[in-house]
Amino acid sequence: VTVAADMVRTYSTDLCSIDQARLSACVEACLACAQACTACADACLSEDSATGPATWVRTKLDCADICVATAQVLSRHNGYDTNATRALLEACVRICKRCADECERHASTHAHCRVCAEQCRRCEQACRDLLIHL
Amino acid sequence: VTVAADMVRTYSTDLCSIDQARLSACVEACLACAQACTACADACLSEDSATGPATWVRTKLDCADICVATAQVLSRHNGYDTNATRALLEACVRICKRCADECERHASTHAHCRVCAEQCRRCEQACRDLLIHL
Amino acid sequence: VTVAADMVRTYSTDLCSIDQARLSACVEACLACAQACTACADACLSEDSATGPATWVRTKLDCADICVATAQVLSRHNGYDTNATRALLEACVRICKRCADECERHASTHAHCRVCAEQCRRCEQACRDLLIHL
Amino acid sequence: VTVAADMVRTYSTDLCSIDQARLSACVEACLACAQACTACADACLSEDSATGPATWVRTKLDCADICVATAQVLSRHNGYDTNATRALLEACVRICKRCADECERHASTHAHCRVCAEQCRRCEQACRDLLIHL
Repeated sequence: VTVAADMVRTYSTDLCSIDQARLSACVEACLACAQACTACADACLSEDSATGPATWVRTKLDCADICVATAQVLSRHNGYDTNATRALLEACVRICKRCADECERHASTHAHCRVCAEQCRRCEQACRDLLIHL
Repeated sequence: VTVAADMVRTYSTDLCSIDQARLSACVEACLACAQACTACADACLSEDSATGPATWVRTKLDCADICVATAQVLSRHNGYDTNATRALLEACVRICKRCADECERHASTHAHCRVCAEQCRRCEQACRDLLIHL
Repeated sequence: VTVAADMVRTYSTDLCSIDQARLSACVEACLACAQACTACADACLSEDSATGPATWVRTKLDCADICVATAQVLSRHNGYDTNATRALLEACVRICKRCADECERHASTHAHCRVCAEQCRRCEQACRDLLIHL
Repeated sequence: VTVAADMVRTYSTDLCSIDQARLSACVEACLACAQACTACADACLSEDSATGPATWVRTKLDCADICVATAQVLSRHNGYDTNATRALLEACVRICKRCADECERHASTHAHCRVCAEQCRRCEQACRDLLIHL
């Protein structure tokens, strides 16, 4: 049982229309993904690859920012603006997918990219699941 | 001339496809809107209205989070993921519109809501302008 | 095993001087605390208490912002600015302590305040532990 | 007149003890600095320097995170936790100073580093000014 799930269970004024398990799974996935992306960007900056990891680093930083915002908005369980939340989840799906695609290509050489790719893929899926049931 | 405009002008690897003036106007508008929403939520918490400002406060907090993320992602001018950026701008338009609509209803009684409504409306418009030209 | 711990283990250019277990415990505690504070602030906004929860809500929002920043800075394991990190951890200890103190007073009546108080106390302790070993 | 100054003027329950001009100047400086650091980190990632800008980029990312959190906390004008705010301002002074020191060394070759250094120095000073009068 996670903290997000605990918090969802302790109050629910108008949560009736949202799937509680999917909601807390998505919050957790966003936070774990933000953390993995921030750490992976930092690790990539330390690799001495000639080609330079500029684009991947940028994608990871964008992914971290969008995941944090999504986790925060989803953590306010009451009184959703469904339109804004839906668009934000779409943004999160897209950046997580791109970040996972890029990280997977480096997963065999960089362990941090492997961990990051897993978290991005998990977050992409959690956002898709919530979008379908929103 | 703003800092965001200054930064946009100092580098532009593949900015060719983006309108620089609209980009920096949007970044500025997002930051000003985030600040106004955070301060307005705080001010609303201090009003002793019987009806309670719960929903408006929540909308303002969501708006601040989404505006900060949008400003950050737009501030990385290079190598955009256009799909994710577009969805994020959509989320920003929607939450700014809702926040402006709510704040305008209290603009005559609360000066902080009037300032906040103006910034939300300006940010909504700046995001729409950028979306069209992205 | 958490994602933060996984990421710490996958790279360590100049991590030699930092305790890896304490570092990842602190990152996790900050993220869980930020989430709990955001959700608890939202839940408090929905309670119809005559006295109004303005101050507690504000403290929780501050706590969430400081915890997110701390988690992000700590997630960049390499090349610490020890002075800035130390001051940030101090800020985190202080706001978590204040938030825990306030939440504990409402823990018997509001389940969300009980969960939030636990996470704030855990985060306060994790930051103190890391500060001693930094 | 800035938005932050406008918001400070529109409400002030217990602002009596804080210098309003210094408060809004500090909020503005933090937001401008966060934006400059985010954009400058992105620009640095695009430079093909053999030595690699890993450490500077990291410092700029830390600086952006701490500046955003400081702007948010300061934007909640009421009911300050002075201890936490003071420590957060200290963290902001330290990271802005370090970031300015690093950026100034590259100001002659990179225009984005020059703009970023100016904003970091301005933010460092604004935080110091507020700390003295808190």
